[in-house]
Amino acid sequence: MAITFPKASSRKIYLEGRDGIRVPMRAVDLTDGTTHALYDTSGPYTDPNVTTDVRAGLPPLREAWIEARGDTQVCAPPSLFRFPSARPPRRATPGANVTQMHYARRGEITPEMEFVALREAVEPELVRSEIASGRAILPSNVNHPESEPMIIGRSFLVKINANIGNSAVTSSIEEEVEKMTWATRWGADTVMDLSTGKNIHETREWILRNACVPIGTVPIYQALEKVDGKAEELTWELYRETLIEQAEQGVDYFTIHAGVLLRYVPLTAQRITGIVSRGGSILAKWCLAHHEENFLYTHFEEICEIMKAYDVAFSLGDGLRPGCTADANDDAQFAELETLGELTKIAWKHDVQTMIEGPGHVPMHLIKENMEKQLAICDEAPFYTLGPLVTDIAPGYDHITSAIGAAMIGWFGTAMLCYVTPKEHLGLPNKKDVKDGVIAYKIAAHAADLAKGHPRAHHWDDILSKARFEFRWEDQFELSLDPETAREFHDETLPAPGAKVAHFCSMCGPHFCSMKITQEVREYAQSGMAEKSKEFLEKGAEIYVAP
Amino acid sequence: MAITFPKASSRKIYLEGRDGIRVPMRAVDLTDGTTHALYDTSGPYTDPNVTTDVRAGLPPLREAWIEARGDTQVCAPPSLFRFPSARPPRRATPGANVTQMHYARRGEITPEMEFVALREAVEPELVRSEIASGRAILPSNVNHPESEPMIIGRSFLVKINANIGNSAVTSSIEEEVEKMTWATRWGADTVMDLSTGKNIHETREWILRNACVPIGTVPIYQALEKVDGKAEELTWELYRETLIEQAEQGVDYFTIHAGVLLRYVPLTAQRITGIVSRGGSILAKWCLAHHEENFLYTHFEEICEIMKAYDVAFSLGDGLRPGCTADANDDAQFAELETLGELTKIAWKHDVQTMIEGPGHVPMHLIKENMEKQLAICDEAPFYTLGPLVTDIAPGYDHITSAIGAAMIGWFGTAMLCYVTPKEHLGLPNKKDVKDGVIAYKIAAHAADLAKGHPRAHHWDDILSKARFEFRWEDQFELSLDPETAREFHDETLPAPGAKVAHFCSMCGPHFCSMKITQEVREYAQSGMAEKSKEFLEKGAEIYVAP
Repeated sequence: MAITFPKASSRKIYLEGRDGIRVPMRAVDLTDGTTHALYDTSGPYTDPNVTTDVRAGLPPLREAWIEARGDTQVCAPPSLFRFPSARPPRRATPGANVTQMHYARRGEITPEMEFVALREAVEPELVRSEIASGRAILPSNVNHPESEPMIIGRSFLVKINANIGNSAVTSSIEEEVEKMTWATRWGADTVMDLSTGKNIHETREWILRNACVPIGTVPIYQALEKVDGKAEELTWELYRETLIEQAEQGVDYFTIHAGVLLRYVPLTAQRITGIVSRGGSILAKWCLAHHEENFLYTHFEEICEIMKAYDVAFSLGDGLRPGCTADANDDAQFAELETLGELTKIAWKHDVQTMIEGPGHVPMHLIKENMEKQLAICDEAPFYTLGPLVTDIAPGYDHITSAIGAAMIGWFGTAMLCYVTPKEHLGLPNKKDVKDGVIAYKIAAHAADLAKGHPRAHHWDDILSKARFEFRWEDQFELSLDPETAREFHDETLPAPGAKVAHFCSMCGPHFCSMKITQEVREYAQSGMAEKSKEFLEKGAEIYVAP
Repeated sequence: MAITFPKASSRKIYLEGRDGIRVPMRAVDLTDGTTHALYDTSGPYTDPNVTTDVRAGLPPLREAWIEARGDTQVCAPPSLFRFPSARPPRRATPGANVTQMHYARRGEITPEMEFVALREAVEPELVRSEIASGRAILPSNVNHPESEPMIIGRSFLVKINANIGNSAVTSSIEEEVEKMTWATRWGADTVMDLSTGKNIHETREWILRNACVPIGTVPIYQALEKVDGKAEELTWELYRETLIEQAEQGVDYFTIHAGVLLRYVPLTAQRITGIVSRGGSILAKWCLAHHEENFLYTHFEEICEIMKAYDVAFSLGDGLRPGCTADANDDAQFAELETLGELTKIAWKHDVQTMIEGPGHVPMHLIKENMEKQLAICDEAPFYTLGPLVTDIAPGYDHITSAIGAAMIGWFGTAMLCYVTPKEHLGLPNKKDVKDGVIAYKIAAHAADLAKGHPRAHHWDDILSKARFEFRWEDQFELSLDPETAREFHDETLPAPGAKVAHFCSMCGPHFCSMKITQEVREYAQSGMAEKSKEFLEKGAEIYVAP
């Protein structure tokens, strides 16, 4: 399987680093002779020199780095389904801690950190110190050496996550693998596999072996399959076994709803939509059925022991997030956040990388409070929000209702935005929905980078705007987040090749193109004013002549 | 021509007011037995008791009100093309001022104000006082009696405008009339006809006679057609004649770029995209060619005399708005805003209703400054912004890049949001683009209403969320901004009629539906906790049984 960049004039290039580190970028060659390197999440699939085969999986980029550290050992072969070419799983040697946070706190700059520094154009020391402080995470399970290192933290570019995964109702393994490569081609920085149907383990194996981005899961889903969907039959032992299976496969971060405490469940009773997190509702049901505290909370330190043996990062789930704007910022939500803050400190005691999940559905005026509380309560651990949707009235368009909230909360400091597709609340997303969700979230993330004043962010806008002003249509298409759609929209009314150099488009037509007139005005203004008025008129007031 | 509401279970109803005033609303009957009235911009087209015919035009709803005031007289029949059934135009009797602002300042509550008060569920006195103070406008040309009164001001619901209009390159009159009714069916509150091609006058006539919403234009476009596109040949006399022609047709507000002063043009020289307003660039060219001050500025009081004779509102154009995020909030933009503030005071001296146009392309962190400056400089005249787009990198998706900025600036106080379609920067929008633009902007406007705490806004979200939680799928579709798309997306994976009452959708499947599990949890929690645990298990932990 090979995929190409959206347009042929983009090229795969690599930034070369220390010790053979090569960071992929997408080079865009413009018609004005300039070349610009854009951040690239598409992986080896877009490198014409790499042959990829979905049945062989991707090359294990990080394997040598992991081995060189000498702190892992091969485990017993697993009993569950593995990929045809699977390596035996590895885990930390007894007593070792193999997390990037652990290395960072020891003062080490790993190849993963070097890779990220090149990718983000920052100093490696910044990467190390941000990971050491807990302000950023670098998800990198030792059993997912195929992943290209990336970082989630508010000192870096805002990232986006795409959810894929079959449900019991629909979709196949092949479809899910294709959705994953499709999502990364358009810019997804991580992918969560939220499969809940049959073949859950096998689906994940295929996704991991073909994923160039970190993969997240919600292990409670698989645990629930093991007890035939009966939440009250879940046990810590069964959950623990599930965590280890998935850690051995290579999952890079786990959503764990350890903050859904028994005493918080009644706080949701007066809500319009109750509990809308799947994991949250499962655990609430378990807590009530047993009238015991959430076993993920009571066994949290044991979970940390597993996480640090593989370098799986926590994504502490917000099981009590609001499911409609009316329920936003209520007692249930903020009570759980307090517990997530407490758990963050425990995770950090074990040097386990940790991010915090956030809502959900929040009207605009209540968004900032979410970010401020999260930073204060969770000691600046990265925030990872789903949207938030800023209104509930637009099912079918929730990629837009949520991109509004996502852009804002990204500006306020959220490190990663979990996308929402147009199918949210209605059905399982297909390929088109995945693309629409990713593009909407690339917009939100980039708008947040601009608003945060990220030093590299505005360059992309500026070169595109310059191309637009100079009627370099091909360059404008090429620099768009979605070159194919931009070109198709333009060509709908002006398909002729000549229109690609024309100094107007069908929106305004030739007489009314403000950019065309402005170019005339500018040349005129720059050459002086009153004394040039006569000359301007003599020339027929048309200085800028189309070729 | 008849159009229907997106779903058959919506009904046209009318709120009855004083003196036979009837305000149209869309009543939605839900399956739980409740009925909800939603704001309705679709006009007589969705009333099965009204026969509409595009060649006959709409009934003149306001004609009797206008006549009853006795302050207008019929003008000489116009020489230009008029509609088959056109009434002769009317204008103020000598010395009279027929603006809603004039009436409001005299303390009168007109039928138009009564209509608006019912429509917005506020006191008529609020409508009057907001118009009197200049904080709101009620666009209502005496020659457009077909329009249903609506109000633009930040004490009311945030409104949206849809632009239509042919260009020299493409589209016909019929297409534009159809786009107009299509835009209002999905929720456009006003429509601007930005036609620039041939038949510009005839196109507008057809649009006005069939428009139930106020219509805006940019008269300089037609003036430029009269001089074959040669900006430097424009004259005040020719422009004045154009204003009168359009005022006699019934245009409700004019975009007038009177703030593009000669001395401001050089301030755009260092911009990446110069001047991106079509009108702004035409006037900049005129100023430079003649080295004279903008004739719209020098003749502004004469323009006011025309406006008040027909009650055409000013939409003071931001000809120097930024065309890319890099150019946002610069000296050129804010210099022009100062002049618009000065012109607002002059317009108000004549009791001419006035709103102020705003950008454009603005990164999120610079949006609030736009609103604050506009309120301060223009004495709280309503702000009417185009987006703003918060990033430039997504041609093909600028309905989304701009909905983000629009939602935010609407929250901050913008009264009307001019939509942007996915075709922006690329070509002329088709029907699908018009719908996509309108829906994105209904989302932005409603999100702004929620964030502003508009007392009626959250009800819509809450009844939809309740329907969602209770698995009333039909009600959820019906309450969506776009019922057709919501239903289509749901049915893509679960088309069977039984799925419309199922307690899950294909997104998560039956075992993992958090809302389903939550309903079980809630019933359990409400009936007590520890003492009920045993009973819960005995029941099989499945309290909520699907029918």
